Amino acid sequence: MSTNVRVVVDAMGGDNAPGEIVKGALMALEAQKNLTLIFTGRKKPLEAELKKYSYDADRVETVFAEEVIEMAEPPVAAIRKKKDSSIVVGLNMVKRQEADAFVSAGSTGAVLAGGQLIVGRLKGVERPPLAPLIPTANGVSLLIDCGANVDARASQLVQFAKMGSIYMERVVGVKRPRVAIVNIGAEEEKGNALVKETMPLLKECKEIHFIGSIEARDIPYGAADVIVCEAFVGNVILKLYEGTSSMLLQQVKRTLLSSLQTKLGALLIKPALKKTLKGFDASQYGGAPMLGLKGLVVKTHGSAKAAEVRQSVIQCVHFSKQRINEKISKQLAADTTSESREA
Amino acid sequence: MSTNVRVVVDAMGGDNAPGEIVKGALMALEAQKNLTLIFTGRKKPLEAELKKYSYDADRVETVFAEEVIEMAEPPVAAIRKKKDSSIVVGLNMVKRQEADAFVSAGSTGAVLAGGQLIVGRLKGVERPPLAPLIPTANGVSLLIDCGANVDARASQLVQFAKMGSIYMERVVGVKRPRVAIVNIGAEEEKGNALVKETMPLLKECKEIHFIGSIEARDIPYGAADVIVCEAFVGNVILKLYEGTSSMLLQQVKRTLLSSLQTKLGALLIKPALKKTLKGFDASQYGGAPMLGLKGLVVKTHGSAKAAEVRQSVIQCVHFSKQRINEKISKQLAADTTSESREA
Repeated sequence: MSTNVRVVVDAMGGDNAPGEIVKGALMALEAQKNLTLIFTGRKKPLEAELKKYSYDADRVETVFAEEVIEMAEPPVAAIRKKKDSSIVVGLNMVKRQEADAFVSAGSTGAVLAGGQLIVGRLKGVERPPLAPLIPTANGVSLLIDCGANVDARASQLVQFAKMGSIYMERVVGVKRPRVAIVNIGAEEEKGNALVKETMPLLKECKEIHFIGSIEARDIPYGAADVIVCEAFVGNVILKLYEGTSSMLLQQVKRTLLSSLQTKLGALLIKPALKKTLKGFDASQYGGAPMLGLKGLVVKTHGSAKAAEVRQSVIQCVHFSKQRINEKISKQLAADTTSESREA
Repeated sequence: MSTNVRVVVDAMGGDNAPGEIVKGALMALEAQKNLTLIFTGRKKPLEAELKKYSYDADRVETVFAEEVIEMAEPPVAAIRKKKDSSIVVGLNMVKRQEADAFVSAGSTGAVLAGGQLIVGRLKGVERPPLAPLIPTANGVSLLIDCGANVDARASQLVQFAKMGSIYMERVVGVKRPRVAIVNIGAEEEKGNALVKETMPLLKECKEIHFIGSIEARDIPYGAADVIVCEAFVGNVILKLYEGTSSMLLQQVKRTLLSSLQTKLGALLIKPALKKTLKGFDASQYGGAPMLGLKGLVVKTHGSAKAAEVRQSVIQCVHFSKQRINEKISKQLAADTTSESREA
């Protein structure tokens, strides 16, 4: 059991806690033999939930935390004040290396702030980016950074590109991932000050397969595997992508239900349409990892159900087994060495 | 005829020039009695195209320009070099007040650069934004700025908000348009440096109906009428919105054609679906105005067909009749006065 990957699961976070969270984590336990789960959360609801299932009790622990950080709370203040919340307790276990990873569907702000303040950055990492996987017409792309750190510097974007590339190759399994930077045109002279400064630095990176600019219109078609951007832009991309998809599907659905004729048509196309849309279900890929920390922190959607939680926990196992953090440390350390040599 | 609105139309710009351009402009001529058209472009193809139609020749002029600015040319260099191109000739007519407005489906970069370099800014305008209308589940919103001027300052965003508000109210006809700034969360402390600096300035504006932040996911639902942002972010929004929509519709279409059963279903839902999608056809609203210039410059899609060109020309008539530029000048001048009073 000593070689098991230990994942702390926030049983209190998200719209469907603790039911779907506990269910999904136990599904992962069933699928992964070398996994130990540590649930954090309020004693009463957590124990009540666990009682519903039969599972390998040797690989499940509970650490109670009676406070809960609400979605609307200012993140940094909440992290500092609520020491006995599932998020703070869970992150502290990662910090003390009592766990390898932490999964939460709770407040994004609190998870991000806690990741930095409690777990802390790997040596050499300037900023830990949040990097969700987004479904495209052609598989899945990593959008890095969508985190809380807006107004990034060029050197930070370069680190995002390297960390994202390692993640896509080792955890998601994309060989030689194509890395691109979000820009407003393909021509050399296009871009804002940050992109113009970052572009030549990315071109110099031998460790990544940099393919240049990506225009936003090509993102849904999967034109790059790792999409590098500053967090404000990344957040706009993530939310607009979700918003546009949900609005259009709502319109299509409404149209299908608008008359008897369309309802009949809908019956005929429903199975095929469901299959198509399943390809765009991000939950099959798990949550968004926060990279560059001394341990893994994964943020799943607030609306995550069991399938996404399951996948997020399994993602932690891959991350840990693939020793992603060692690879990130090694690559960023190599850079420091070459920089100091140049200096 | 002296009170006619005079619109110069670039007969050479876009994928469907001169055919669809000439056709669309003449459709506008038919619809608007107080409109005079001035076509610029190469003599031979332009005259050949005009011969195909019968129209009120008293209200149609031609000014020949034998050069053409290609899409891939560096914009500023092209504007400086190709003095006899339809874009340069057309913009010069607006500059000399021989025309009120210029409509082009040609190179966006060249039109934007030419607008600034040739027509010039209204007094008090720091930057002329490009402001396309985007279709939403709830009508149409003005996205301002999607232009070439990235890395804007807070004072410039405030001007965008004011100009956009005037445009939506007077040209599009939205009463008391809701103005919002693109942000990554609704909470007060959210945002990048630019948004945090701009927010209090917008709150102080008495002339506009400012409703605060808009998250990208709410844009497709039409949560604001005037969506203020810096041009890099605006460009990402515009292109991602177009890209996501076209990708999803492509997927739905492919699904509908995937089997005999779905093809039958498709036949039943086609009329209703077509009607729904028509609501999202941006061309019914015309092109994107470049605001804050000494005259109106409208950029239509490169792929614009007659219907969009027609609408863009009619948009110029409304703009001119509503004396939008006088209103913009007056409001920005009022600001300067109040600022100097405060100083």
